[in-house]
This record gives sequence, C-alpha cells and structure tokens, in this order.
Amino acid sequence: MQKLGVGMLGYGFMGKAHTNAFKKANYIFYPMPVETELISICGRNEDKVREAARRYGYQRWNTDWREMICAPDINIFDNTGSNNVHEEPCIAALQAGKHVIVEKPFALNLEEAKRMSNAAKEADKKGIKSIVAFNYRFAPALRLARRIIAEGRLGRIYHFRSQYLLDRFSDPQAPFIWRLDKKQAGSGVLGDLNSHAIDMMRFLLQAEPLSVMAWNTTFIDKRYDSDGIVHPIDTDDASALWLKLENGAMATFEASKVATGYKTMWRIEIHGSKGGIVFDLSKGNDLQFFTKDDPLYLQGMRTINATEPEAHDYAKYWWPRGHNLGWEHYHIHMIEHFLRCIATGEDIAPWGATFEDGLRCQEIISAALQSSDEGRWINV
Amino acid sequence: MQKLGVGMLGYGFMGKAHTNAFKKANYIFYPMPVETELISICGRNEDKVREAARRYGYQRWNTDWREMICAPDINIFDNTGSNNVHEEPCIAALQAGKHVIVEKPFALNLEEAKRMSNAAKEADKKGIKSIVAFNYRFAPALRLARRIIAEGRLGRIYHFRSQYLLDRFSDPQAPFIWRLDKKQAGSGVLGDLNSHAIDMMRFLLQAEPLSVMAWNTTFIDKRYDSDGIVHPIDTDDASALWLKLENGAMATFEASKVATGYKTMWRIEIHGSKGGIVFDLSKGNDLQFFTKDDPLYLQGMRTINATEPEAHDYAKYWWPRGHNLGWEHYHIHMIEHFLRCIATGEDIAPWGATFEDGLRCQEIISAALQSSDEGRWINV
Amino acid sequence: MQKLGVGMLGYGFMGKAHTNAFKKANYIFYPMPVETELISICGRNEDKVREAARRYGYQRWNTDWREMICAPDINIFDNTGSNNVHEEPCIAALQAGKHVIVEKPFALNLEEAKRMSNAAKEADKKGIKSIVAFNYRFAPALRLARRIIAEGRLGRIYHFRSQYLLDRFSDPQAPFIWRLDKKQAGSGVLGDLNSHAIDMMRFLLQAEPLSVMAWNTTFIDKRYDSDGIVHPIDTDDASALWLKLENGAMATFEASKVATGYKTMWRIEIHGSKGGIVFDLSKGNDLQFFTKDDPLYLQGMRTINATEPEAHDYAKYWWPRGHNLGWEHYHIHMIEHFLRCIATGEDIAPWGATFEDGLRCQEIISAALQSSDEGRWINV
Amino acid sequence: MQKLGVGMLGYGFMGKAHTNAFKKANYIFYPMPVETELISICGRNEDKVREAARRYGYQRWNTDWREMICAPDINIFDNTGSNNVHEEPCIAALQAGKHVIVEKPFALNLEEAKRMSNAAKEADKKGIKSIVAFNYRFAPALRLARRIIAEGRLGRIYHFRSQYLLDRFSDPQAPFIWRLDKKQAGSGVLGDLNSHAIDMMRFLLQAEPLSVMAWNTTFIDKRYDSDGIVHPIDTDDASALWLKLENGAMATFEASKVATGYKTMWRIEIHGSKGGIVFDLSKGNDLQFFTKDDPLYLQGMRTINATEPEAHDYAKYWWPRGHNLGWEHYHIHMIEHFLRCIATGEDIAPWGATFEDGLRCQEIISAALQSSDEGRWINV
Repeated sequence: MQKLGVGMLGYGFMGKAHTNAFKKANYIFYPMPVETELISICGRNEDKVREAARRYGYQRWNTDWREMICAPDINIFDNTGSNNVHEEPCIAALQAGKHVIVEKPFALNLEEAKRMSNAAKEADKKGIKSIVAFNYRFAPALRLARRIIAEGRLGRIYHFRSQYLLDRFSDPQAPFIWRLDKKQAGSGVLGDLNSHAIDMMRFLLQAEPLSVMAWNTTFIDKRYDSDGIVHPIDTDDASALWLKLENGAMATFEASKVATGYKTMWRIEIHGSKGGIVFDLSKGNDLQFFTKDDPLYLQGMRTINATEPEAHDYAKYWWPRGHNLGWEHYHIHMIEHFLRCIATGEDIAPWGATFEDGLRCQEIISAALQSSDEGRWINV
Repeated sequence: MQKLGVGMLGYGFMGKAHTNAFKKANYIFYPMPVETELISICGRNEDKVREAARRYGYQRWNTDWREMICAPDINIFDNTGSNNVHEEPCIAALQAGKHVIVEKPFALNLEEAKRMSNAAKEADKKGIKSIVAFNYRFAPALRLARRIIAEGRLGRIYHFRSQYLLDRFSDPQAPFIWRLDKKQAGSGVLGDLNSHAIDMMRFLLQAEPLSVMAWNTTFIDKRYDSDGIVHPIDTDDASALWLKLENGAMATFEASKVATGYKTMWRIEIHGSKGGIVFDLSKGNDLQFFTKDDPLYLQGMRTINATEPEAHDYAKYWWPRGHNLGWEHYHIHMIEHFLRCIATGEDIAPWGATFEDGLRCQEIISAALQSSDEGRWINV
Repeated sequence: MQKLGVGMLGYGFMGKAHTNAFKKANYIFYPMPVETELISICGRNEDKVREAARRYGYQRWNTDWREMICAPDINIFDNTGSNNVHEEPCIAALQAGKHVIVEKPFALNLEEAKRMSNAAKEADKKGIKSIVAFNYRFAPALRLARRIIAEGRLGRIYHFRSQYLLDRFSDPQAPFIWRLDKKQAGSGVLGDLNSHAIDMMRFLLQAEPLSVMAWNTTFIDKRYDSDGIVHPIDTDDASALWLKLENGAMATFEASKVATGYKTMWRIEIHGSKGGIVFDLSKGNDLQFFTKDDPLYLQGMRTINATEPEAHDYAKYWWPRGHNLGWEHYHIHMIEHFLRCIATGEDIAPWGATFEDGLRCQEIISAALQSSDEGRWINV
Repeated sequence: MQKLGVGMLGYGFMGKAHTNAFKKANYIFYPMPVETELISICGRNEDKVREAARRYGYQRWNTDWREMICAPDINIFDNTGSNNVHEEPCIAALQAGKHVIVEKPFALNLEEAKRMSNAAKEADKKGIKSIVAFNYRFAPALRLARRIIAEGRLGRIYHFRSQYLLDRFSDPQAPFIWRLDKKQAGSGVLGDLNSHAIDMMRFLLQAEPLSVMAWNTTFIDKRYDSDGIVHPIDTDDASALWLKLENGAMATFEASKVATGYKTMWRIEIHGSKGGIVFDLSKGNDLQFFTKDDPLYLQGMRTINATEPEAHDYAKYWWPRGHNLGWEHYHIHMIEHFLRCIATGEDIAPWGATFEDGLRCQEIISAALQSSDEGRWINV
C-alpha cells in the first residue's frame, strides 16, 4: 500500500497534537484505508525544528514552508501555524495538489477566508481534500449530540448556548504572547474560542444565523512579554455574541480567557420543545440528555458516558466501554476522517469542517467585530 | 410585647410562601424583637379567600384591599398580587402608615416604579419600612457570596454571568396564564426572572450598569387558556441581556421559560482577578468558590455547604450544620429581616431590597425593553 | 372538628423538628383529616422547658413525663428524648391510650425493643397508633425510589450500599456529649446512623437479612466534656456492616462521625439486573436512576428532581415543581402520615415504620454489636 | 543511543495498551534516557499475532513465549497474558536477564507470588528491573493524592474506602469468558478490581493491614460461552473486604461487576483528622480535597484538575493545563517510569509496584479468599 507523506508546519502545541494524531491513527484504526509517513516538519528556528524532527520521527525538516509545498514525497500539508501564516501556505499547497489541514481560527479576515475557500473548491474538483481543524466535531459526546438532534429527539430548537471559559490570562501579570496581538491572531477569544463554538452550533443544529450582535472587551490593556517589553493589547479578553438563527432559535455565546476558576470549561446547552442537551468539555466523555419521552415522574437529565461502540463510530477501536478518552483523541479522530476521505473520496462534510465552513465562521466573526464596534446587529 | 398585625394581599403561590414565613419567623428566630399576628387576607374570590383565611389562621378576610389599608389593627401590608396591582395598594398603604412588602417584579413600568419609590421615601421619614421581595438576597449561600466578594477575595471583578432557566412553558400546549399577558405582567422572563438576576448582580457586586443591550424572543406566539380561548402572546419566552458595569465588568444574563431539561436552574458565575464564584439554585445550600490564594497544585473550585453558623447569620437558628434548607427558607429570612428593621429602626438596605432598588431594577428592565425593540445599547 | 392534643417530650434538635412539623402540617396539608393542638412540652430543666413552651406555643409545660401521660387533653405523645428514656414513657403512654411517636434509635437494647413492640401491638388492637421516627422514609426522592423498585424497574436486586458519613467528631478535641455514652445512647453511629440505613434498606427493598457481620471502631478513646471532665468513649466512631439478604443480595453499610470532608453525606446505591438507583442526602431532592430500557447509546444515570406532583404524594401541597424542599420537610410528611393514619384508621406500614420495624432494626443492631465483638457472622 | 528491545506477550486489551505506551513514551517524554524498539509480539493464534505485529510495528512474532525469552535483541519482557501464564514466563525472563513487566492480578495464588517475588529479588541484584502493572499509581490525580497525604495534610488517617463498580456482567445473559474461570483467573473481582484497590491503599497511605475480613458472592451461577456451552461460575461477581490497618485506620472495599448504572466507577475516599480526599476514576483528571486549614466559613471539598505542571511530574510533557488526559495515559506514565529506572538504576518503588508489592497484594487476596470461606477475620 502506498503511504501518504506528511509535511507539518509548526511544532508547538498544535504541531505536537497533529503529529501525535498521525502516529496513532495508523495503528489504532488499523487497517487504515491509507497509511501515512512523517516526511518533514517546518519552523523558523532551525535548532528547534531539527530537534522536533528527531523527537517525532520526521525524516527531515524545513525552515521555509515553500520547500515543503514543492516536495513530491509530501502529499498532505498540515498547517498548525498562527493565523497570519494560514492563507498563503494553504493556497500554495492546494494549488500544488497537496491535501491540506489548517488549524483554526481559519483566517485573519474575510478576504483571506474567501480566497482560501475558493482555492479549496478548485482543488476539490481535482480530488484534493481540505479540512479546518475544528477538532471538537470529533469529540464522541458531541458526535452523539449531533445524532440525537438529527433524530429529532429535541423537537423544535429554541436555544443554543455556549460558554467557553478559561482563566489563563486572568492574572494581569500573565505575559504577552502572539495570541494577544491583532496582527497575528485577528482577534482574541472571539476567534480563538468562539470560532469553535460558532462552528459547533452550525455542526450540531445544521442551522445558519441571520444576524449577529457582539460585545468584545479587553480588561487588561497592556501586558509585558518575557523580555519585559510592554505591549498594548488590541484583542479581546472576553467576547459575548448573540446569533439570531434562521429557524427562530436564540444562540448565545460567551468566551473569556480571564474566567478565574475555570482552567478549560466549555459548556454547551441546547433546549428544544421535546428535549435538551448539555455538554461540558471538562467532562468531555459525557453527554447529558433530557427527553420528555420518559414518564413525567422518571424524567431527568441523564449522563451518557459516550464510550459505547453504539454511541460513536470510533469507540470500537479504543478501549472497552467506560475507559475514558482524553483531549488529544479528538484530533486523532479528525485525522482518521481526513485520511479516510482522501482514500475513499468521501466528502469532508458534514462530519468534518470544510474551508467553506471556515469561511462561514469567518463571516460571522467579521460581522461580530463590526457589531461590537458599532453596537448594533449586523446581518450575515 | 405588642404584636404587629399582618394584612396579606393574595393567597396563591407567593401568598402562601409569605404567610408561611410570618408563621415560622415567630418561633424559629425566637425571641423576635417583634412578633406578628395574621389579621386578614385579601382576594377577589370570596369563597377562596375565606378558605385561605381558615387554612392559614387569618382572623378575617377581605375582597377589597382598600379595607385592609384602613384597618387599624393591620400594621404590615404584604402585597403578593400580580404586577398590575402593585402600585396603587402599596402607595395607599404607605400613606396610611403601614409597613409594606411587595413581590417582584416591582412595577409594570418606570412611571409606576418612580411613584412607588417616592412614596416609600416619604414613608421612611416617618419610620415606615418597605421592602421588595427579592428573596434570593436571603439565600445563605448568596449572602456568603456577598461577604466573600466584599472581603476582596475575588479581586477586580471581570465577569458576572447569570442564567435563569426553566422549562415550564417549553411545551407549546402549556396553557395561557396571566404571567404571559403584558398588561398584567409587564414583560415575560425579563421581569419575572431577570429582575431577580439584575437585583442579585447589584446586591453581590455593589456596582451599577452604565448601559444595557437586550434581546427578547417569543417562540410560541399564541396559547390557549384553560377555557380553550386563544391568546396571542405579547411577552418574552426568553430574554438575553448585557450590562456594561461602571467598574468595567461584563455582566451577561439569560432567562428562559422554555429551557427544556431544567425545572429551575439559576446559575450565577462571577470571575475576578483573584478568584471566582459559582452558585446554582438547584443546589441552593452550596456555594462554589475558587481562590488563587491556595498553592497552585492545590487550587480548585470548592463546594461550601453554607449551613455553618460561621457561614451566615441565620444558620444558628435552624438545624445542625449539614442539614439543608429549602426554597421556602429564603422568604422566612427576608421576613425576619423586615420585622427586625421595623422593630429596631435598622435600614432595609443593604441586605434587603428597598423600593429604590426596585426602581433601579425597573429602570434597567425598561431600558432592556427599549433596547430589544431598537436593537442597540441604551444608557441607564 | 375535634383537635388532637400533642404532648412533646424533649425540646432539643428533634423536639424542635417535630414541633415544627405539627405546626406546618395543619396548614400545608389543608384540610387535614384531623388537626392538632400543642398542649404541653416536657423536659427536666424547668427554666428551659418553660421558655420552649413560650417559643413554640405549647399551652403548658411539664418536668415529669408521667404528668403528660395521664393528661386527658393529650392524645398524642411524641418522644424525642434520648434512647434511655424511650421504653418506659412510650409503654406507659400506649397503655394510657395515647398515640405514640418515638425517635430513633428505637431502644437501648433488644429486651426494651421487644417490650415496646408488644405494647404497640396491644395498643393497636384498640386503635392506638404508634410510629418510629425514621423520617427519611418520607423524603420524596426515597419514596420515589421505593416506587421504582416496586415497579420492578431494577429487576433482581444484587446490591444495596449505604454510606452515612459525617465529620462532626473528626476533631479529637470535639467535646463529649451524651450520644458518645453507651448507657444513654446504646451505641455510636451504629445506632444513630446505621439504624436509618438498615430501616431504609428494609423499606426500599422489602427484604430481610439472614445474617450480619459488623466492625465497629473507636478512633478517639477519650474526650472532654464542656466542664473539662474526661470521659472514656465506649461507643463506636465508625461502623461497617454487611447483611446477607434473603433474596441473595449483598447489603453493605458504613457509617462514621469522623469522615472529614462530609458535613452530612448519605449515599445509597442499589443495583439490580435491569437498573440502578443512587441517592445522596446532601442533594436530597434528587434521585438518580439508570435503566437498561433505554437504547444502549442513550443509557445513562439520570437525575430526577423529585418535586413533580407525579413523583410523590406530598409535592402538590408544597411549591411549584423545581422549588426544593429541605431537611425539615421529611418530618412534616411523617407527621402528616401519622395523623392521617390516626384519623382514618389506615396502617402506619408500609410507608411509616412501626414499632415492629423498630424491633427488627434493633435485632439487627444487637446482632451487629455481637458480631463486632466476636468477629463472625451472626444470624438474625 | 542504544535502544532496548521489547518482547510483548499478548495482543488483547492490555497488549494494545502497553504497546501504545511504548510507542508514545519515546516522543512524549523526549528525550527519554533510553529508547525502545518493538521487537516481537507473542500469542497462541499465529494468524492473529502476525496481524498484531503488522498493526503495531513489531519486527516479528512468536507463538511460544520461550522463543522471546532467549532472544538476545529482547531486553524487556512485557507479560500481559492472563494470570495463569504469569509465573513461568516471568521467572524465566528474569533469569534470562530481561527486565519484566507483568499485568495484574500478579499471580494465581500465594505460592506463585512468592516464587515470582524471589526471582525478582535475585534479578534485582544484577540490575534487572521488574514492575507489576498497577497503572493507577501513575494517574496524575492519585499521585497528587499521595503527595497531599505525605505532606500530612490529612492528619491522622481514620478511613480508607474504595468502591470499584462495573456493570459489565449485570446481565445474566452476558457470555462466559476466561476471567470468570477460577483456574485461569484465580478469583473474580477480588483479584481483578480489588487488587487495584488494595495496592492503591498501600501506595497512598504507606500502611499495611493486620487482618482481613472478606465476603465474596456469585449472583449468576452459570453462564454460556459464545459457542453456547454452559459453564458453572466459580469466581466472585462481587467482593466486599475490610482491612484493619496497622495505624488503626479502617479500610473498606467493595468491588462488583454487576453494579448496573456504572460503566467504570472507582471511588476512593480517605478521611483523616485534618482533611479528606475523594477520587472517582470516571472523572480521572480530578482530585477532590478538603482541608480544615481554611477558615470554617470557607471550608469545602475542592475539585483540583490535576493538569498543572505543579500538580504532577508528567503534566509538563503533555498539553497545556486544563486539557484532560484519558485512561490510556496511566500506562504511558508507568512505562516511562520503568524505562527511566532501567536507564538510571533508580528504584521502581515507591512510585511503581514491585514484585514484592505484588506478593503483598496476593497475600491479602489469599487471606480474603480464606476469610470469605470461613466467615472470620484472617491475620496477614
């Protein structure tokens, strides 16, 4: 069997998570319809990228992504770089016939997102696949949520509610990093966290917003980097968002990186005429589900530990029921899906996020930025 | 010792809760600085109000609240009627020298609220007390929250977040009642539930909002009453609210009566630079508290069962620590506070809600109604 | 309607809880088939008992329970005294034709329990009712548990598990009180806490034990009373218990008053071939229920907030669904049941605990004391 | 750097978990003091073991473990076979100078355990390391628990309590497998689950039991295998256990494979004079901790998400704080520890379980079997 060669841009948090996913997919979902080989990893600091190549078993390394794009033994280009190096490398890779994975937030702005989405559409005609790494679409409990909703068990949807709350920057002394810089990151938690939530709403409800109201706030207006240099902060520490959905439902979002008390808490609640769903990433193997189908005296929110083979497609490959997965496994499932789509020609959608999904998410984020500035609803 | 006579308007849910509170206060907080006697209860349906008087041990009954106001043996007028019978009886009672309790929502509109607040101010000069029944100010866990915040344990406040979620009307077939009628209720969950949340934010943070953004939605636009008559619904089923606070904090609110899965869930979360707090009314004896004062490896959200005498003023009168109170007890504490203020001349504020607090809350609700209509921020 | 006169022995924790229950039953479960009047309260310290009479509205007081027993205006004798004053007053009252309530633990030893049970049987022939105050039988969530089990929803029962854990005496400096003295209390947490658990097992499962294995431990072997006098401790701080049930199920119990971290935690877990149940007194309004009847991918432990009128007989008398009750309400329900049985002639069993249930519980406790001493299983 | 060759016995659940651990340790804990290479995997069914070798990247396969033992390129022998193939291969491997990992339960009986422990002691003199795969010693939250206890934060220990509850066999129709056969498995949940709990008690408390009381029960006395052949069941479905500890503490255990409602629930509770700890494997990243050091009104059980680098040694190698690990990661940490001990000469104890720990655990299990048969306490 031919193996697909992987070229990885970035060796930080996400580069590690994606690399781990490629390594594990080969033996966990055995036999994969196609296997992969780690060819090259790319970063600007040669010492560090060389070390990363050794650590993860890449055959070589690059300091310029352009070298990767033209390498004939690289079939998949995985872009885990910061937002400001998404557009150019992704489009170049797609045009060079590489399958592309890109981390979120998808793009720095709407124009970039449109060009990237167009490039993906063109590539798709030639069988070249692309995916945005909205990894939570591959969390078993959330896949189960999608199934329950699609089965009509919630009835007419009234509410979608998301709170994505971290405390990583609640200390005013927490140092400046690139994620806090608008030029590199596009926005703060709006793009970093609410992009996940917006995509998840679209994924779960299969519904689109008609208009957006947003409120972004920066609590700590300057921070010092590790060299002691002060940086004014031009990205949001917290972002509240309302989306009027086409089906009449209210979708409300809040994201914060100064939510002291929560290391990583992402709570999703959905209420319909017949049932409800609650998910909390800090107990990520579990889905809470309420149905009015039970007799009234037996009704209650139930906690489903989504580790049964009946509960999701990936369970049978892992451990016996009741043995929990961790955060890293969502990425592994995503890579499996991506590779299977490449091998079989299946569509990335609806289980994975296409570049069109990335564009749609960016449209909402862009509208949110405008709405927050102008203090009014913006149609999308 | 002289006993104060109580005249009660209303014998429904709240009439029962207040009556129960008067009865229990006498022997639970023994010796009270002043005791009470249940003199009269008032309602429009004579058969029912006569039966209520028998049930609860009122000496007599009235079908017209005016008779209560002028009765010399009545010292306290407790108004648990619907919003549209708050203003006139309360003002008349205050002018007649009766101490007044009024249920929330305080008033139908801003004008009523202003007149009521003015009447209370005038009466106060003569030692006549008045209180708005924001009973959750008397929930032990929330009083403890206020103390923790006042002690500075959360540091600078970044976030206040409230979700008050019921499923009582999630079924489109749920029958029409007066609370769904704008003329009688003023608004839907905005007034019924978010009024509690707005008052609680002011109570806990001791901070005021500068401007308001609101989004009210009615999902089910008509309902049938128990006689089969159809009523168009002109009140909100769900209400989202943002308040920019004077101290720079973001306060976000959501209330719904169609939140399938939650019988009565009220979650309050507060995050500051040094700590955080979470409260959930469905586990109403407990307060969750996070502090950065612990060593990093021992930091975690702790669950404080607020039944210790050290945790709140009322605990020592009840059962040994660890024996939980229920919903009704918040009202009992409120009545104790009210009676103590009458007897000792202490101020209703800051522990109880004055008519000025009622007015302030109504200003925010009125601004929210305007904001939701106009789709823009409104200063308050 | 004739009112039944109440004579109360004891004005401490339990005297207060029972008095409160009599007062509330009259107006909460209105109209009661029979009403009550608080006639007299009895205690050894005249100053204190006089004050208690004033506080709670008893018409008079006694310092000798014998005076109560012969008073013709007293129809109900409620014994909330310590274990060593249960037998004589209860038997005398029954023989004098008074209906009797007695707090748990029922008796100091098996002989007392037998005599008390016999007296109750004799009295019952003349329509005189008696009940042991196992109040948790009247917790709504546990009544719902009994119904679910009786409906066969758990299938064949494999496990009953109870952990009743307090930290009240975990501090070696916590002062000596009568409950720690074998002569007055009979045993430690075995009688105080595990008696509740044993009764609850019999109530929920409707099954009897065949044999008992026990392990009692005293960690702190002497304590000082509030006057500084040292007392050797001859009662258990912690008690573990196994019961082999006639239906083949394993019942395991643990109780402790030195379980640091738990103010009052009582966890009950039941597992059968078709379902399971979990209850935790610290969230006493909720029952957790698991059933294999759901499709496998939807199975999960559900949390039922037992406040629906469909969930238990008492709900409709209280507040709307979702408004939680507290600890005191279990006693109020018990008093309602007792008074209804007196008025209608209904049997105390199976919802209430008869003196025969008290005897059966004492047989198990006595066997447990022997088993712990001898280190072997004892048949019961 | 020289790489150590790995020979793996078994390709089922545990073979997969250990193989995954070897693969991940190399790049997660980079740079490891020694790396590993997967040389051979062994099983009786040649087709299946050949496929396993391909799947996981072993260079070859064996159907007889003896071939592995003498292979010079194999340095580590990992025995994940069933209990009845532990003794002979492990001793042979140790004598052949291979480092050995063996899954739990350690041995079929006490004699086997003694011989294995002796072999390990002999081997250790030559620098040959051996470990029993009590993987939960490497769960971050439990390592943190050990640290908290060792720091004296719980004071004098009163209680250790473990409930390890599964529902895998609660259905009487669940098919017969080798784990239910005494000849192959030694015992039922006593060995399979309570062995973990016994080891964990010794690990956390650093205390030994003086005597044992046990109660084993088999609810379903025959089951059919997948070929329809009936097997009488001679192993326990449920096992209750009491250990009197040398420090005076009570240790109580319960394990069941018929605990309907729990897929995999392992609850550990420890109470001391100054604090308490609770762990639940179904929320395995979290440790609950209670301390009396807080002011009384702020005391509460706190939930520590043990993902901070400050909380445990492995955190810094994984993902940022708040990103949860799963079940598989405990094995990965164990393999890291084993390899580091081989490379550096560090002792397996106290973080890992030695063969002496395995023996000690087997002594307690053997005493438990005897105690359950004889219905009395057995000294250990």
